Amino acid sequence: MFGLMQDRPLLISSMIEHAATFHPTTEVVSKTVEGAIHRTNYSEIRDRSKQLAKALKKLGIEAGDCVGTLAWNSFRHFELYYGVSGSGSVLHTVNPRLYPEQINYIINHAEDKVLFFDNNFAPLVEQLAPALKSVTAFIAMSDREHMPDINVPNLLCYEELVSAETPDYQWPEFDERTASSLCYTSGTTGNPKGVLYSHRSTVLHSLMQVAPDGFDFSSKSTLLLVVPMFHANAWGVPYSAPMVGAKMVLPGPHVDGENIYKLMRDEGVTFSMAVPTIWLMLFQYLDANADADLSKLPLHAVGVGGAAPPVAMVERFRKSGVDMVQGWGMTETSPIGTINKPLPKHADMSDDERSKLKTKAGRGVWGVELKIVNDEGNRQPWDGVTSGHLYVRGPWICSGYYKGEGGDPLDAEGFFHTGDIATIDPDGYMQLVDRSKDVIKSGGEWISSIELENAAASHPKVAEAAVIGIPHPKWTERPMLIVVLRDNVEMEKEELLSFLEQHVAKWWLPEEVMFVDELPHTATGKLLKTKLREEFGALKPAKIS
Amino acid sequence: MFGLMQDRPLLISSMIEHAATFHPTTEVVSKTVEGAIHRTNYSEIRDRSKQLAKALKKLGIEAGDCVGTLAWNSFRHFELYYGVSGSGSVLHTVNPRLYPEQINYIINHAEDKVLFFDNNFAPLVEQLAPALKSVTAFIAMSDREHMPDINVPNLLCYEELVSAETPDYQWPEFDERTASSLCYTSGTTGNPKGVLYSHRSTVLHSLMQVAPDGFDFSSKSTLLLVVPMFHANAWGVPYSAPMVGAKMVLPGPHVDGENIYKLMRDEGVTFSMAVPTIWLMLFQYLDANADADLSKLPLHAVGVGGAAPPVAMVERFRKSGVDMVQGWGMTETSPIGTINKPLPKHADMSDDERSKLKTKAGRGVWGVELKIVNDEGNRQPWDGVTSGHLYVRGPWICSGYYKGEGGDPLDAEGFFHTGDIATIDPDGYMQLVDRSKDVIKSGGEWISSIELENAAASHPKVAEAAVIGIPHPKWTERPMLIVVLRDNVEMEKEELLSFLEQHVAKWWLPEEVMFVDELPHTATGKLLKTKLREEFGALKPAKIS
Repeated sequence: MFGLMQDRPLLISSMIEHAATFHPTTEVVSKTVEGAIHRTNYSEIRDRSKQLAKALKKLGIEAGDCVGTLAWNSFRHFELYYGVSGSGSVLHTVNPRLYPEQINYIINHAEDKVLFFDNNFAPLVEQLAPALKSVTAFIAMSDREHMPDINVPNLLCYEELVSAETPDYQWPEFDERTASSLCYTSGTTGNPKGVLYSHRSTVLHSLMQVAPDGFDFSSKSTLLLVVPMFHANAWGVPYSAPMVGAKMVLPGPHVDGENIYKLMRDEGVTFSMAVPTIWLMLFQYLDANADADLSKLPLHAVGVGGAAPPVAMVERFRKSGVDMVQGWGMTETSPIGTINKPLPKHADMSDDERSKLKTKAGRGVWGVELKIVNDEGNRQPWDGVTSGHLYVRGPWICSGYYKGEGGDPLDAEGFFHTGDIATIDPDGYMQLVDRSKDVIKSGGEWISSIELENAAASHPKVAEAAVIGIPHPKWTERPMLIVVLRDNVEMEKEELLSFLEQHVAKWWLPEEVMFVDELPHTATGKLLKTKLREEFGALKPAKIS
Repeated sequence: MFGLMQDRPLLISSMIEHAATFHPTTEVVSKTVEGAIHRTNYSEIRDRSKQLAKALKKLGIEAGDCVGTLAWNSFRHFELYYGVSGSGSVLHTVNPRLYPEQINYIINHAEDKVLFFDNNFAPLVEQLAPALKSVTAFIAMSDREHMPDINVPNLLCYEELVSAETPDYQWPEFDERTASSLCYTSGTTGNPKGVLYSHRSTVLHSLMQVAPDGFDFSSKSTLLLVVPMFHANAWGVPYSAPMVGAKMVLPGPHVDGENIYKLMRDEGVTFSMAVPTIWLMLFQYLDANADADLSKLPLHAVGVGGAAPPVAMVERFRKSGVDMVQGWGMTETSPIGTINKPLPKHADMSDDERSKLKTKAGRGVWGVELKIVNDEGNRQPWDGVTSGHLYVRGPWICSGYYKGEGGDPLDAEGFFHTGDIATIDPDGYMQLVDRSKDVIKSGGEWISSIELENAAASHPKVAEAAVIGIPHPKWTERPMLIVVLRDNVEMEKEELLSFLEQHVAKWWLPEEVMFVDELPHTATGKLLKTKLREEFGALKPAKIS
């Protein structure tokens, strides 16, 4: 027997409609590519999204078609979020930081029908255009005055498209499972794989995100969205902010410390979210400018994700009266899987203890089930010590990749294999230990490559460190440490090993240490351990030492 | 094209599972019918709900069967919320305050298979039992020691049923649109009608409710749930609290001022929700007990609904540092339709202005669309002045009543007709003006019977006032005021009319005033205007005056 409740689909268009209806004059502030401050509001964004939806139809875009973007965080990108998805097409946000050949692959794989781009990507678009077979129009996110002078077929002007239409458009209603947006995740091996979000998953993710134990968004929030809108939907904030009528501040490409600080100060930002690197840039700016002081701003919390923040970062924010909230997730998890908020029992903790707790990835939010399992697939205890492969399940976790790439990523219970190794403590706080493919399996026990790398990197002479597993006849695998020293210093292997002995268990000590001039990285800055393994992994320890 | 997200149904069982997983030791405190304080936690509640689910199966309860309750707010009622709905059956919470013949009708209409009841309803159950044809077992929510001595067929003991089972039970997975619970709403005419909630509507309602601009629930909340669990699912809090791991305090039948205050004080309550009458009882207790002081408690907000609170109530709470949050809704809206939270622009308001704003019903939350229309069905402006019939639409608004009673309550756009007259201001704050059937249509304009009643009731000699429309040859309808005077006072019609002239527009002045000894009410205390209309409505003004 079904309940007798209205059968209303959960659609992305409902979020901008809610904002325009109940928060029409709430501002959306952008720092444009050109550097000017642009101000609009939810009523105008809704109207222009509708005009855009009509313009897309005229360009031949139909339901289910992919629309590509190469763009920073701005009101126009925000309008695309609603105009494209709201009308039933699929917003494909492309990461401009990838290598051109990867961008090429991604756009062709998604079969984007048109490509919207910010002007400072014009040279890149001109370079890419000849290979983009599916793209029938290139739309500069600009007015006529600032149109780039590039040679691409069917170059159009965003403002002309929008202003040619009126906002008398009714958002279509359709099945909430309809695809809404597409984001490719680039691993360290193989081609990028597409994660295809749905309207349903996006709405549910937003409802979870605004909760007090989520990011705590309300109509009183002013959100500085530093995390890019081409990166896992900017953590979902372009959806959750209008859902609650929060003011939005979009920094465009201006994500250096000075611009971040000044936007926080001038716009009364209460919450901002970014990866740790951005916050380090902010601290550098604060260090160099005595009159810049976070504690004098209305900022009361920052979100951090993408990498675990160091305790020192938590502490520094805390001393300015800013709470650091860590979240963990992946493109495949929409992206939020866990959020680190303290429990009432933590009220009596010392500041040091609480800061340390805050470096954990957090508890599963409602809607995300977690489990850690051993190599045989058996659930491991939540004791904060035992580690296992992390699996997640929930209505905003992906079930597979676009066009079936990568096969079925779910286990028999329907849990997604994250590829991470984690511990979970008795309160449900998850902590990442390593990537599954990077953990070193030594004599049936697991050694975290990340923890070893962090320990090595804490030596004052070490600039960067990588740890890979190398085959071992007795222990199956043993860790090998590959180190880049800081400029103009020297160190012997023995000095580093005796330093490490003070920081890790003896049986974790690397079987071998190599000194190199530089380490290989991916386009997005991750250590490229596959390359290290190609180079060093086949060597037997006996040969090296 | 569908997104590639996990197809996980939104089920009520997920909420207690989340609480038991991430907040296992968070307390659920009950003041039992017998008056003792009982403490349990989410882990135990989950386990016992599962044991209950197994016991229900043994009693022959199948998916879709209705399970009735006549019970106060307690851990056992809470376990029934999960044990019944979680296992796929339908929890039918019966309002024990209705007349026995209405309860009789409701249980027979729902075809409840078994009836759970609190011991203090034992005499009522014994009286009802012979007429309850579908009920195969009567289960006292008690241990063996406290079993009531009544003569009903198949009298069972709750604690024996639960303790006979082990918690090794897997919640079933099924379509999220499956019926989860049933609640009858009693109007002033006709038989009560059943609102049949679904798992989907309940989960979505909970996600909305916990948001900062909703009731702002988190793991740091301690919630005193005064609103009864037989009244529109206690505003949904038994679902939303475990969703975020909030501590719950359940007062049983002990909802007098002293018990409310002491539970707030002893359990560290941060938020509580009730109808205005309860808060008046709390104020009376505070007035009589100088050592009782809300401002010394952790209580920071109270929710109020069911009737608009007077400004004085908002003010009194404010002066104790307690924010009053009004919500509006109906059994048919799960129940939350609007919540009154201030916007950033209201920060500069005076306390008086803000208190007045807080007496409005509030803005539509995300998920609820509002419209006001005139008699012809045309949308009316949101100017805070123009009133219209209030319609609502959303995934937790009912689409019809159980077994088709009352026909189709939706309009062509799928909006539910609330039966209320309301204004909506430019910020989306809705304010109830009257019930559609009570508003007086005088010369094409509408006169609010409620506003006239409130104006009359503000005269110091008036104990209670009712306004109905009476036919008028020229104006179609004109208002008639029916008044009960306070004990030992006298008043002429002219004195009251000249008093009213200072409070309402001249054309609103009642055509006739009648003094009576008492006014008729429904079982739940509402004015029974149908009876007044029967008695007075047919009279022509010319005859009366």
